[in-house]
Amino acid sequence: MRGYKKPTVSIIGASGYSGAELTKILLRHPSVKLENLYAHTQAGKKVSDIYPEIDTDMVYAPYEGDVNTDIFFLALPHGEAHTIVPELAGSGKLVIDLSGDFRLKNTQEHLQYYGKEKDPKAVLTYALPELFHEEIRQAKAVSNPGCYATAITLGIAPLVLAPLKDAGVKQVNCTAVSGISGAGRTAKVELSYSEMNNNVRAYKAGLHQHTPEILQALGTDSINPAFGFMFTPMIAPLVRGIYTVLNIQLEKHLPVSQIRAHFSDFYRSAPFLRIRETMTEVRHVTYTNFCDVHVAESAKNGSTVIVTAIDNLVKGAAGQAVQNMNIMLGYDETHGLLL
Amino acid sequence: MRGYKKPTVSIIGASGYSGAELTKILLRHPSVKLENLYAHTQAGKKVSDIYPEIDTDMVYAPYEGDVNTDIFFLALPHGEAHTIVPELAGSGKLVIDLSGDFRLKNTQEHLQYYGKEKDPKAVLTYALPELFHEEIRQAKAVSNPGCYATAITLGIAPLVLAPLKDAGVKQVNCTAVSGISGAGRTAKVELSYSEMNNNVRAYKAGLHQHTPEILQALGTDSINPAFGFMFTPMIAPLVRGIYTVLNIQLEKHLPVSQIRAHFSDFYRSAPFLRIRETMTEVRHVTYTNFCDVHVAESAKNGSTVIVTAIDNLVKGAAGQAVQNMNIMLGYDETHGLLL
Amino acid sequence: MRGYKKPTVSIIGASGYSGAELTKILLRHPSVKLENLYAHTQAGKKVSDIYPEIDTDMVYAPYEGDVNTDIFFLALPHGEAHTIVPELAGSGKLVIDLSGDFRLKNTQEHLQYYGKEKDPKAVLTYALPELFHEEIRQAKAVSNPGCYATAITLGIAPLVLAPLKDAGVKQVNCTAVSGISGAGRTAKVELSYSEMNNNVRAYKAGLHQHTPEILQALGTDSINPAFGFMFTPMIAPLVRGIYTVLNIQLEKHLPVSQIRAHFSDFYRSAPFLRIRETMTEVRHVTYTNFCDVHVAESAKNGSTVIVTAIDNLVKGAAGQAVQNMNIMLGYDETHGLLL
Amino acid sequence: MRGYKKPTVSIIGASGYSGAELTKILLRHPSVKLENLYAHTQAGKKVSDIYPEIDTDMVYAPYEGDVNTDIFFLALPHGEAHTIVPELAGSGKLVIDLSGDFRLKNTQEHLQYYGKEKDPKAVLTYALPELFHEEIRQAKAVSNPGCYATAITLGIAPLVLAPLKDAGVKQVNCTAVSGISGAGRTAKVELSYSEMNNNVRAYKAGLHQHTPEILQALGTDSINPAFGFMFTPMIAPLVRGIYTVLNIQLEKHLPVSQIRAHFSDFYRSAPFLRIRETMTEVRHVTYTNFCDVHVAESAKNGSTVIVTAIDNLVKGAAGQAVQNMNIMLGYDETHGLLL
Repeated sequence: MRGYKKPTVSIIGASGYSGAELTKILLRHPSVKLENLYAHTQAGKKVSDIYPEIDTDMVYAPYEGDVNTDIFFLALPHGEAHTIVPELAGSGKLVIDLSGDFRLKNTQEHLQYYGKEKDPKAVLTYALPELFHEEIRQAKAVSNPGCYATAITLGIAPLVLAPLKDAGVKQVNCTAVSGISGAGRTAKVELSYSEMNNNVRAYKAGLHQHTPEILQALGTDSINPAFGFMFTPMIAPLVRGIYTVLNIQLEKHLPVSQIRAHFSDFYRSAPFLRIRETMTEVRHVTYTNFCDVHVAESAKNGSTVIVTAIDNLVKGAAGQAVQNMNIMLGYDETHGLLL
Repeated sequence: MRGYKKPTVSIIGASGYSGAELTKILLRHPSVKLENLYAHTQAGKKVSDIYPEIDTDMVYAPYEGDVNTDIFFLALPHGEAHTIVPELAGSGKLVIDLSGDFRLKNTQEHLQYYGKEKDPKAVLTYALPELFHEEIRQAKAVSNPGCYATAITLGIAPLVLAPLKDAGVKQVNCTAVSGISGAGRTAKVELSYSEMNNNVRAYKAGLHQHTPEILQALGTDSINPAFGFMFTPMIAPLVRGIYTVLNIQLEKHLPVSQIRAHFSDFYRSAPFLRIRETMTEVRHVTYTNFCDVHVAESAKNGSTVIVTAIDNLVKGAAGQAVQNMNIMLGYDETHGLLL
Repeated sequence: MRGYKKPTVSIIGASGYSGAELTKILLRHPSVKLENLYAHTQAGKKVSDIYPEIDTDMVYAPYEGDVNTDIFFLALPHGEAHTIVPELAGSGKLVIDLSGDFRLKNTQEHLQYYGKEKDPKAVLTYALPELFHEEIRQAKAVSNPGCYATAITLGIAPLVLAPLKDAGVKQVNCTAVSGISGAGRTAKVELSYSEMNNNVRAYKAGLHQHTPEILQALGTDSINPAFGFMFTPMIAPLVRGIYTVLNIQLEKHLPVSQIRAHFSDFYRSAPFLRIRETMTEVRHVTYTNFCDVHVAESAKNGSTVIVTAIDNLVKGAAGQAVQNMNIMLGYDETHGLLL
Repeated sequence: MRGYKKPTVSIIGASGYSGAELTKILLRHPSVKLENLYAHTQAGKKVSDIYPEIDTDMVYAPYEGDVNTDIFFLALPHGEAHTIVPELAGSGKLVIDLSGDFRLKNTQEHLQYYGKEKDPKAVLTYALPELFHEEIRQAKAVSNPGCYATAITLGIAPLVLAPLKDAGVKQVNCTAVSGISGAGRTAKVELSYSEMNNNVRAYKAGLHQHTPEILQALGTDSINPAFGFMFTPMIAPLVRGIYTVLNIQLEKHLPVSQIRAHFSDFYRSAPFLRIRETMTEVRHVTYTNFCDVHVAESAKNGSTVIVTAIDNLVKGAAGQAVQNMNIMLGYDETHGLLL
């Protein structure tokens, strides 16, 4: 890339866990220059005051406009990206938004799951690269998927989007374990070490906001779904990771080997998707951008078990966002993401 | 109980985690006398050498017969109780066996899931007290349920054994998280702190030996089941606890409130079964003999989510064994089990 | 105790971790009746809403005076017991205060370490039972020691209060690891699971408020100490426990065996003090009222290492408070405290 | 480095935790080529079978000589490097040995602490780069320091090797917390998650084999030490990290600010040594090659507290080994080690 001036990137909402992970990845990315770190509540503090493991002298600043940056990552809480994204996109910047504000096309679902009205036009390209690579390549602004949505959608998509003959999907029951960092860098009694050590807690069974996101990515919706869908997330005593057990009811039995072969074929061009022949574990993907998928079992009545694992802060947030940036810039998808 | 001579109890296989938990409970039980602790590999060692938190001077001994004990608990590895139980039962002792050796009636299932032939007569009363109280009361020897089997069966039983009108069970998908103590006090790399911290790992999806046990307790079997059944266990970084998410497909939608009322009614005489109106967590039951059940969600298509929690070493093993002893001796079911 | 009317006990500040531990212990104590649980911020809530593992129907109430209670435990934050204790003591109640408000005799030290002026008369009997049993027996109101102070003082006292010939203490360097519950049930980012998993952090090196408390219990003070003293606490990823490594510089070398014998002799009447011949571990004392002490090493130059362990919420707070109540009521010291 | 043929590196003992960490670092090092991974017990297995998070197709092989490799890292258990190192060094290879076999010059100490006779000539350059940079630069074979030795020596060295006027070191008491990975990838009950969760355990107080190594690096020995020295290590529930609290008794009081300035000056050329003004934590250095040092407190009597933190597998093993390789090859010390 001799003679090539590196594009500049900045992060708005840089001081949370996703923002910090983005900071780490972008600092070592060979082909972009990390320009500014914006964080309202931490403005004026050094990055290394909050994250001493990040070796940089950069200082958080309040965002008040920025003409020098080419590409913006937004890692703001849900609801806060709403007005900034259109402004940035309108001024010709590339935008990758990690919030839920621009994921759902259906305003009724957005209202139901996020509790807020939304502009029907406030929808960006849904940037799950393993499914929508070409759309992302052409987009100027994209919406980065949720962590659960990434791990679950990738474990179901081959059976829904490329169904095998007579083996349509009738019902999907998803149970997922999330690391506690998924709740963000926040002060809550119920997230304290004393409360979560040796604990497990489910929440929002059937009601989690990633439910309509997953169904939309699979070509249907939560109001009139093409197949039954139930998702129950839980948190357990780990920091990073999403681990999903997907019970998929097919119309007929398919042998595990056939499903594995179908997955391998479906994802043959996806460098971060690993079809594992043995059981996957969270530790296999921690600190990586991989999504591991293991087809575990299929019963005579078509009941099929698929297990997936990602790092919620990497493939479930910052890593996937950089993967999307690579695609948007025409770089190799894995550029700066393989350690 | 003035003038009443306390019955004597001994534990065979006393040095593992279930044996140690039995030791703690029986030492403080007001109406039995803990007589002997048998443990082959630890014979000669003091209990407090291995479990210094247990305040006793008792010493492990090798089991070579014992005429002074009235009630035997067996907490041996699977396969080792096989010959001892019939001898003890034959000599008029009360026996509570915590292994899997006497749980399954179906020899074909036993062979498939435990890898061993078994004598068709080697079946004891299946001692899940919330379902089989009367049978246990009359038994001289009982088989204590498995930990997953306890947590899962209790979360399904009201819908299968007392189905609501037109709302039969079509399919059950169980995902369960187990504490690592469930694997026993054993030296394995994959159970080390370094490997399991921040990790989650599923195993034996669809193949776990508690599968036929659950179905048998629900009145069917795994070979020709009356409803679809799939069980995927996983271990996560906690020591104690079983946490289950049960996805139950009913023939028609029932409101959550109706299912809760049905559960409350079904378990109205079960002192350790708590129907919770809010989400249960592992920490709510740790070190207790409670099984908490929460009816979380039911979708329009009949897809229903129930969450249950127990302590695997208490309600899932030692506590339930003592609950069974109480019933066999005519004591109150909770005697010595409420702290 | 036939015909004996049990004394009534109440807890002011019942909803924190120490208060909850007191609740558990007092609910099962055979010879007192738990009457009221006072908690300002949680008033109106059921105990089991916050601590579902506690099997009771009791409800938190705001404290507005209480004539029906015989014995009060105060488990309030530092500074809040200041006015209540004198009122209760003045009205003839027995009082056991778990805060730091009444521990230090020296007002200058109190100001320095707690940042507040204090009334020179606001001092209660310092209730470390292994050292001050007789004073506690005669007291009507006592101040329960701090958790670090308990674990450290008990590991040094025999060498300071009953020094061996020519082996006076010259310098003590204490390093202690605390479980995170020691910071209380509180919402702070730095106590969250995501921040403390795989982390260790020292704090207040040389400045911790238990420093003058330890020295006072050992018969000296922090302003003109009879020996050098340095204490560095740290928190590590465990919930319960205080583990101390005490480096004690003696004026001459004493063999480990002699020091052990001296400790055993010094604590011969202390039922909760266990002199261990092998290394102690936190798990040996968790959920117990024991303080384990191990004399680990002594070098030629008199440098001696002693290791101690307690459960910070039991021997370091609630258990010791009940031990003190037992002594004040003339019960056996261990009554209701051995499981 | 156009036209420069990268030197080849191989690891003998590649399948343990240090070997795996070396593998990760060397795979991404820009200026060497990882050639072979030798591991006796895992020979024939793919690296990714054991460490799926390492993205490579490399396969473990048994070591039976290797002429194609320029630089060897040995990450064998203590005692196993003894014969291989001289052979490799004799054939002109660069060697970096991570075991304890070649660290101690004093054969009497080696016998006492490792339980084995050793050849007085079996001593390599002790490769703690912050102290012995020039010796390492000129060496062909070096001995990589132990993890505790690294974290402790670096926290004491400025006060011993460059003492401030009239402020000599009289006594050093070290207490260190280690992550459990320090015990290696090994199957032991006492390292299991069930035993170490919520636990802390000291061991080898005063007897740990890093004691003479630290003293040797500081220019004295454990048999006739120039100052008193006592070291007590402990393990706590974390995977990675060494955290040390160093109580250093100086001949006179020095203000904290003066000691900090002295440390900053002493380490002014050491890129991985960070003198922190606020308290350091393990998480600040995890997955990095940094050693953080914080001068925490100094009392009137000269008692001084210094806290240090490293990642035991990086700065305490693999990272430091690569830092040494960089120095031996004339690369920048930090090459490939800053993420």
